Amino acid sequence: MARTVFVLNGPNLNALGIREPGIYGGGTLGDIEKSCHDLGNTLGLKIDFRQSNHEGVLVDWLQEAGEKADGVAINPGAYSHTSIALHDAIRSIDIPVVELHLSNIHAREDFRHTSMVSPVAAGVIIGFGPNSYDLALRALAQILES
Amino acid sequence: MARTVFVLNGPNLNALGIREPGIYGGGTLGDIEKSCHDLGNTLGLKIDFRQSNHEGVLVDWLQEAGEKADGVAINPGAYSHTSIALHDAIRSIDIPVVELHLSNIHAREDFRHTSMVSPVAAGVIIGFGPNSYDLALRALAQILES
Amino acid sequence: MARTVFVLNGPNLNALGIREPGIYGGGTLGDIEKSCHDLGNTLGLKIDFRQSNHEGVLVDWLQEAGEKADGVAINPGAYSHTSIALHDAIRSIDIPVVELHLSNIHAREDFRHTSMVSPVAAGVIIGFGPNSYDLALRALAQILES
Amino acid sequence: MARTVFVLNGPNLNALGIREPGIYGGGTLGDIEKSCHDLGNTLGLKIDFRQSNHEGVLVDWLQEAGEKADGVAINPGAYSHTSIALHDAIRSIDIPVVELHLSNIHAREDFRHTSMVSPVAAGVIIGFGPNSYDLALRALAQILES
Amino acid sequence: MARTVFVLNGPNLNALGIREPGIYGGGTLGDIEKSCHDLGNTLGLKIDFRQSNHEGVLVDWLQEAGEKADGVAINPGAYSHTSIALHDAIRSIDIPVVELHLSNIHAREDFRHTSMVSPVAAGVIIGFGPNSYDLALRALAQILES
Amino acid sequence: MARTVFVLNGPNLNALGIREPGIYGGGTLGDIEKSCHDLGNTLGLKIDFRQSNHEGVLVDWLQEAGEKADGVAINPGAYSHTSIALHDAIRSIDIPVVELHLSNIHAREDFRHTSMVSPVAAGVIIGFGPNSYDLALRALAQILES
Amino acid sequence: MARTVFVLNGPNLNALGIREPGIYGGGTLGDIEKSCHDLGNTLGLKIDFRQSNHEGVLVDWLQEAGEKADGVAINPGAYSHTSIALHDAIRSIDIPVVELHLSNIHAREDFRHTSMVSPVAAGVIIGFGPNSYDLALRALAQILES
Amino acid sequence: MARTVFVLNGPNLNALGIREPGIYGGGTLGDIEKSCHDLGNTLGLKIDFRQSNHEGVLVDWLQEAGEKADGVAINPGAYSHTSIALHDAIRSIDIPVVELHLSNIHAREDFRHTSMVSPVAAGVIIGFGPNSYDLALRALAQILES
Amino acid sequence: MARTVFVLNGPNLNALGIREPGIYGGGTLGDIEKSCHDLGNTLGLKIDFRQSNHEGVLVDWLQEAGEKADGVAINPGAYSHTSIALHDAIRSIDIPVVELHLSNIHAREDFRHTSMVSPVAAGVIIGFGPNSYDLALRALAQILES
Amino acid sequence: MARTVFVLNGPNLNALGIREPGIYGGGTLGDIEKSCHDLGNTLGLKIDFRQSNHEGVLVDWLQEAGEKADGVAINPGAYSHTSIALHDAIRSIDIPVVELHLSNIHAREDFRHTSMVSPVAAGVIIGFGPNSYDLALRALAQILES
Amino acid sequence: MARTVFVLNGPNLNALGIREPGIYGGGTLGDIEKSCHDLGNTLGLKIDFRQSNHEGVLVDWLQEAGEKADGVAINPGAYSHTSIALHDAIRSIDIPVVELHLSNIHAREDFRHTSMVSPVAAGVIIGFGPNSYDLALRALAQILES
Amino acid sequence: MARTVFVLNGPNLNALGIREPGIYGGGTLGDIEKSCHDLGNTLGLKIDFRQSNHEGVLVDWLQEAGEKADGVAINPGAYSHTSIALHDAIRSIDIPVVELHLSNIHAREDFRHTSMVSPVAAGVIIGFGPNSYDLALRALAQILES
Repeated sequence: MARTVFVLNGPNLNALGIREPGIYGGGTLGDIEKSCHDLGNTLGLKIDFRQSNHEGVLVDWLQEAGEKADGVAINPGAYSHTSIALHDAIRSIDIPVVELHLSNIHAREDFRHTSMVSPVAAGVIIGFGPNSYDLALRALAQILES
Repeated sequence: MARTVFVLNGPNLNALGIREPGIYGGGTLGDIEKSCHDLGNTLGLKIDFRQSNHEGVLVDWLQEAGEKADGVAINPGAYSHTSIALHDAIRSIDIPVVELHLSNIHAREDFRHTSMVSPVAAGVIIGFGPNSYDLALRALAQILES
Repeated sequence: MARTVFVLNGPNLNALGIREPGIYGGGTLGDIEKSCHDLGNTLGLKIDFRQSNHEGVLVDWLQEAGEKADGVAINPGAYSHTSIALHDAIRSIDIPVVELHLSNIHAREDFRHTSMVSPVAAGVIIGFGPNSYDLALRALAQILES
Repeated sequence: MARTVFVLNGPNLNALGIREPGIYGGGTLGDIEKSCHDLGNTLGLKIDFRQSNHEGVLVDWLQEAGEKADGVAINPGAYSHTSIALHDAIRSIDIPVVELHLSNIHAREDFRHTSMVSPVAAGVIIGFGPNSYDLALRALAQILES
Repeated sequence: MARTVFVLNGPNLNALGIREPGIYGGGTLGDIEKSCHDLGNTLGLKIDFRQSNHEGVLVDWLQEAGEKADGVAINPGAYSHTSIALHDAIRSIDIPVVELHLSNIHAREDFRHTSMVSPVAAGVIIGFGPNSYDLALRALAQILES
Repeated sequence: MARTVFVLNGPNLNALGIREPGIYGGGTLGDIEKSCHDLGNTLGLKIDFRQSNHEGVLVDWLQEAGEKADGVAINPGAYSHTSIALHDAIRSIDIPVVELHLSNIHAREDFRHTSMVSPVAAGVIIGFGPNSYDLALRALAQILES
Repeated sequence: MARTVFVLNGPNLNALGIREPGIYGGGTLGDIEKSCHDLGNTLGLKIDFRQSNHEGVLVDWLQEAGEKADGVAINPGAYSHTSIALHDAIRSIDIPVVELHLSNIHAREDFRHTSMVSPVAAGVIIGFGPNSYDLALRALAQILES
Repeated sequence: MARTVFVLNGPNLNALGIREPGIYGGGTLGDIEKSCHDLGNTLGLKIDFRQSNHEGVLVDWLQEAGEKADGVAINPGAYSHTSIALHDAIRSIDIPVVELHLSNIHAREDFRHTSMVSPVAAGVIIGFGPNSYDLALRALAQILES
Repeated sequence: MARTVFVLNGPNLNALGIREPGIYGGGTLGDIEKSCHDLGNTLGLKIDFRQSNHEGVLVDWLQEAGEKADGVAINPGAYSHTSIALHDAIRSIDIPVVELHLSNIHAREDFRHTSMVSPVAAGVIIGFGPNSYDLALRALAQILES
Repeated sequence: MARTVFVLNGPNLNALGIREPGIYGGGTLGDIEKSCHDLGNTLGLKIDFRQSNHEGVLVDWLQEAGEKADGVAINPGAYSHTSIALHDAIRSIDIPVVELHLSNIHAREDFRHTSMVSPVAAGVIIGFGPNSYDLALRALAQILES
Repeated sequence: MARTVFVLNGPNLNALGIREPGIYGGGTLGDIEKSCHDLGNTLGLKIDFRQSNHEGVLVDWLQEAGEKADGVAINPGAYSHTSIALHDAIRSIDIPVVELHLSNIHAREDFRHTSMVSPVAAGVIIGFGPNSYDLALRALAQILES
Repeated sequence: MARTVFVLNGPNLNALGIREPGIYGGGTLGDIEKSCHDLGNTLGLKIDFRQSNHEGVLVDWLQEAGEKADGVAINPGAYSHTSIALHDAIRSIDIPVVELHLSNIHAREDFRHTSMVSPVAAGVIIGFGPNSYDLALRALAQILES
C-alpha cells in the first residue's frame, strides 16, 4: 500500500521560476510538483504537495502530517534560518522529516548558513536544484523501507 | 465583578501531552484549560483560553486583550525567543502580561535561553509544568488586586 | 496615467496613536493613510494602503505588488529585524521597494539596529514620524520617473 | 507533619526597603520573612529564613538544607549571575530548589540576564516583587505534594 | 524669513562623479550643490554647502552650525561608521541634524552597516543617490515648520 | 561510455562499523564501497573508491580527479570543518564535487556545524547513513547528465 | 567636624610590598594606611582603613559605611572585575564611593580591563601607585565639600 | 624652576558649559583653564592649555610636548575610544601622560567603555567633573617629583 | 626533613561521595585526605589538608601557605572558572602551586572549560578522579626536588 | 604480563632541546624516550615511542593503538588545538588516552588555550616539562590497573 | 620619461628614529626619504615624499595623487587599522597603491592585526624595517611596467 | 659564497596556472621556479624550490631548512590560516622566514584574513602575483646581508 508523504514548501517558493532564475533555475513550483508525483508513483509514495508563505501554516501542516502521513520532505525556505516553531513541530512528530534546499545555502549570505530545522531533520539535501526534491523523496522512501 | 484574563498559548502547545512527554509531561492543553477555568473561578477571573501556531494571531489577540481584558497570561512557546512583534504588542497595551513556560528553558538548548517577551512582561514563571499556569494566574490576580 | 503604489504596514502599526505616543506620536494609521492618499494624488500615484500583523500576509502582499503595482513603500515594523522571508520576497520582485520607519530605530534597543529588509530596499527613510511616509512616496515617485 | 523549607537570600537583600525602592519596593526583608511564615503556616511548611552577603555561606546553607530540609526557595541576588559554586551546590542536593527574583532581571542591565542558578533550579519566578516569595513557596508546596 | 541650513559633506565626496560611478552615479558634488540651492529657494531655506576630508573640520562646522544655522543635513561619508566626535558634536547642538547617504550602505560591506551618527540624528535618509539630498532638505523643512 | 567518479573518504572512515556504531551504524567502509560499485554499475559510473587519514593525500586525490575523473563524491570527515586546503582543491578543479556525511552533523557538537567544503560543493547530502553515498552518486549522475 | 571615610581594600592587598613589587611597588599596606591617616588629618577626614580577602565582608562593610560614613574610597582588587555584589552594595548606599587601583589595569591582562564597580562609582583613579589613595581622598573631600 | 605641563583637550570640549550640562556641568573650558593656571602656580607647574577638534592636531601637540614639556594631562574626549594615533604618539614620548575624563565614561554608552589611551597613560582619572583636571595636575606633580 | 604541602579544596568538595557519584566517583574527601597522608609519608611531604566553600578563605590559606609551606596542591572547584582573587593570590606567593580536578572539566559544560588558575599554576592535572591528588603530589615532590 | 602503551608525539617535538629551550627545557626527545622506557619497566608497561609531524600519521597510529595497545599517552603538540581528526580517532578506540603537554599551554598565546583532544581524553597533564610524560604513564598504569 | 610616485607617511612617522628604536630601528624618516630618492633614480621614479599626522591630509594627498601621480606607496601608520576614509580614497583613484609597514604588525597588539587599507591595496609589504620602502617602490615599478 | 634559500610552496600551488587564473594569473609554478633561480643567481642565493600539499611535509622541510639553509621564503597557501604546526616550526628555527602570497588575501573571504604564520615571519609580502616571489627573495637577501 502506498505511503503518504507531505512535500511542504515555505515562503516565496510559489514565485519559483519567476524569482531570481540565476539562483533557482527557470522551472516553476508546478513543474516540481509534477515531477514529485511522477517519482512518487515510481517509489510507491502518495504525494501531498503544499506551499505557504505563513510560518504558522507550515507548523499546522507538520502537525497534520504527524497524524496523516508517513514522512515529510520540507523546503522551509527563509524560515529555515530562524524558525524555532518549525524545529519544535518537527521534534513533536514521530515521522521522518527530510530537509531540502534548491540552492547551496552555504555559498550564499551568512544568514543562510544556519538552519534551525537541520538538528531535528532525519537528513538534509542541499543545492541540487529541482533534483533536491527527487533526492529527498528517494531518501524518505529508503528510510520508510528500512 | 469578575475580571477577564486571556490565557494565550503559542505554537505547538496544542500538541501537548502527545509531544515529548519526557519534557512537557503527559497532560493535554485541554487539561490545562480546565484547570485554569477552575482556578479562575476561585480567584474571580474569567478565563479566555486560546492557542495558535501563528505569530500574527498572537499579536492580534494581545491587541484584542488590550481592549477587552484586564490581564494576560502567555506561554509564547517557540516565539518567545525571537518575536519582536510580541514584544511590541505587549508593550503597546496597558494591562499586565505574565509570561510562563512549562519546561525550564534555561536547562535546554542555548537558543531557548533568551526571551524577547521577558523584558516587557510584568513577571515570568518558568519550569513548573502545568502548575506554571496556576502560578501565573495567581500572580496576575495579585497584581490586579494591588 | 497614475502609477500604483502599495503602502504596506507591519505588526502593531494598527495600534498607532494608542501605542506609546511618546515614541510614535499621537496620530493614527488612518491619519497616515489619508495623508498618503492626498500626497499620492499630487504625485500621480494610486495608493493601496494595507496593514497586517502576519509576516506571511506581508509576503503575500509583496508578491501581489510584484504583479499589480509599480512600487512599494513598506514599514515592516518588528519584522524588519528578523524576517528573511520579507528579504526574499522583496528580492524576487522587480519593482522598487522603499523601507521606512516612524521612529529612529538606531536610537532604540540594540535588536532594532539591524534590518533584514534594508539590503534589498531601493532606499531607506528612518525616524521622521508620519512624515517618513511622505518622504518615502516622494522618493518612490522620483525613482519611478527616472 | 510540616515539611521544612529554607528560604535563602543573597547579598544586599538585607538592605531591602532602604535600597532603591524604585526597583525593589518599600517593604523590608523582615516584612517578607513574616509573610513567608504566614503563608508557610497555611501551606504546612516550616520556614527557615536566612540572609547572607557571603557566597560561601550560601553554599554552606544549601548543603545544610540538603540534609535537613525538604526544599529551598532562594533569591541568590547578585550571585545568580556568576556563581558556579551555587550551581554545583544545588546540583549536589536531592531536594527541589526554586529560584526567585524580586525585580524583572530581564528588564535591567545585560549582566543580569543570565543566571547560573536557573539551569539547576526546579523552576524560576521573576519580577513579582515580594509576591515572588509567595509564588515560590506555593510552587515548592505543589512540588513536594506531587 | 529664510532659515539657514548647513549641508555638510564628509571625506571623498569631493570626488563624486569621478569616483566609482557604478555606486554613486555620474553627477558631481557641484551638481548636487546647485540642486540643493534650487530646492532651498523653493522651501525657503538658505543653503550653506561645504565639504571636507577632515573629521575635525566637520566637528568645527557642526559647532558653527549650532550657533548660526537652523538645521543641518550631513552626509558624513566614511566617518559615519567610526566617528564618536561627530556623534558628540551633533548631540551638543540644539538644532535638528538629518543624516543622509547616497548609496545603500546596508547593501555594501559590513563595516558600513553601523553609523555612529544615526543615534543622534533627527532622521536618516539612505540610498536614493543625489535625491537623498532633496529628501533630507524636505525632511528638515518639515521639522523646522512643525 | 561509463564516466569515472572518485569516491573519497577522509580520516577515521576506515574505522567505520567498529567506531561508534551508535552514531554511524554497523556497516563497514568495505560494505559501502561494494554498494557504491553496485549502484555505479546501474548508473553507468565507474567508481574509484579511496580512503585516507591524511589531509594532503585528499588534496592530491582531488587534483588527480580533476585530471582523470568526471565527478567526485567526498565524505571529508573531520577535515570538513577546518580544511581550507580541501576548499581550494575543489575550487581549482572543473568537475562537480558532491559533499556527503553519514551522520547529521547539525545534531552533533558545535564544531561540526560548519563545513569549509560546502561553499564550493555542487551540493551536500547529510545524515542518511550509508544511503548518503547512494544519494550522492545519484545526484552526481544527474548533474553529469544535465 | 571631621567627616568619616572608609578606605576599603580587597583581596591580596594585605600582601602588598611582598607581592610582585615590579607591578605594585615596594611599600606595604601599612605604609599606605599611615599615609591615608596623615592626609585625612589635613583634609578633615576621619579614616577607617580595612582590608579583607572576602567579597562578602566587603559587601558588609559597604553597607556599614552607608550607615556610619560620609564617603568610601575602595580598591576592590580582583573583585573589581566580576563582583555584581559590590556593584549592588555601592548602588544601595547614598554616599559617594571612589574606586581606585594601584596599577594601570588597562595595561595588564584583558580580564582586568572591565570593572563592575566603575559604573556605580562617583569617580575612578587608576595607576598612580600608593598615590592613588591620596588622589582618591582628595577627590572625596572635594565631593563632600561641594 | 617651574616645570611645563601641557593640558590638552579633545573634540567638543570647547563646547563645555553649553553642551549637555546634565552630563558635564555648567562650567566652561575657560573656567577650567583658569583653575588649572591657579593650581599650576601652587604646584610649581607652568600650564600650556589647548583644545582642538582635530585628531591630527592632538598628535602634533603630543609630539611637541615630547620636546618642550615635562608632562601632559590629556582629556582626549571622543578620540579616547578609537585613536591608535594618540596611543602611538603617547608611547613615542618619554614624559608622563595622565588621561582624564570629566564624566564617568563607564556609566555611559558601551562605546565609551574602552580607551585606546589608557594602556599607555601613566594613570587615569575618571568622572570628577572639572575637579578631574585638578587631580590630574596633582598626580602629574607627584610623578614629576618622584 | 619533610617539606610541608597544603592540599586545598574548594566549594562543594566536602560533599564528595554523596554528590553526583556518576561524575565524581563514590569515595569521600576523607578517603582522599587519608590517601594524601599516606602518599605524603612515602614522598617525604607533610600534608596539611583543608576544604572551604569560601573564596576568601581559600585566598587566606594560599597566603598562609606562602609563609608556611613549600608547595600547594589545589582543587579550586567552581572557583577555578571565575576567581581572579585566587589567580592573584597564587601569583603573589613564591612556592609552586599545582592545580588539579577530579573530573575532566573539558568534557563538561562550556563554563568549566576555562580556568583562571591555570595560567599561574606550575602545572595542571585533570580528570583522573581521586588519583588526580596522587599525581599532583608526585608532581609537586618532583618540582621541590629539582 | 606487561601491557603495551603507545607514547605518541606530534609536530616539532623532534626538535625538542634545540627549539626554544626557554619554554621547553634543554632535554631532547631521545632523553624523554629513554626515561619513558625506564619508568615503563618499573610500571610493567611496554613502551612504543613515536613522533611525527603529520596529523594523518598520528591518526593512523591511534587506530593502530586501538588494535595493538592497552593505552596511549599523547602529546599532540600544535595539532591539539585544531585537530578534529585526532578527536575522532581517540573517540573511536576503546583504550584510555592520556593527553600531556610539556609547557603550560594556558600561560601562552590564546590559540593554545583550547584542546580538541581534551574532551575525549581520559585525563590531561599540563606543564610539568619532561615529567609530564612520567605522570602520564603513572596515570595510565593506574587506570589500567583499576 | 620618469613616472611620479607619492610616498605617503601617516601619524607619528615623523618621530621615527626617536620613537621606540627597539621596534622601528634607529634611522629617521629623513634617512628613508633619501634612500627612496636614490632608489627612485635607479628605477626611473620621481618621488614625492610626504608625512602628516592628519587623516584628512592623507585623504587630500591620495586624491591629489589620483590626478598627478602614477602610483602611491603608503605607510598609513595608526590610521591603517581604522580609517574607512583612506579605504575610500584609495578605491576612488585609478592608480596602484602599495601599503607598507616598518614593523611586523601581526607580531604586535591585536588592534594592529587588521588593516582597512589592505583590501583596496595593490599589494602589501610588512615588517622589513626601512627596507619595506625599497620593496614597495620596486613592487610599484614592476606594476607600472606591466 | 652563495647562501642557500628554501622556497617552499603549500597546498594547491602545483595547480597554478590551471587553477583560477582570474585570481592567480596564468603562469605556472614551473615559471615561478625558473624566475626564482634566475633572480637567485643575481642575488647570490642558491634556491631549493619545493611544493607539497601536506602540512606535515612543510613542517619537515622547515626543520630541514633550519639545518641546511640560510633563509626561507614560504607561500603556505591554505595552511597559512590555520596551521599552528607551521607557526611552531618557524619559531623553532633560527633563520629568517619570509611569508608571501600571490593574491591579496585581504581582498578575499574572511577566513583568509588571518595568518598563523605572520606573527613569526621576518616579514610578509602580499598580493603582487609571481612578483611576490621576487620581492621575497630580495627581502631575504637584504636581511642576510645586514
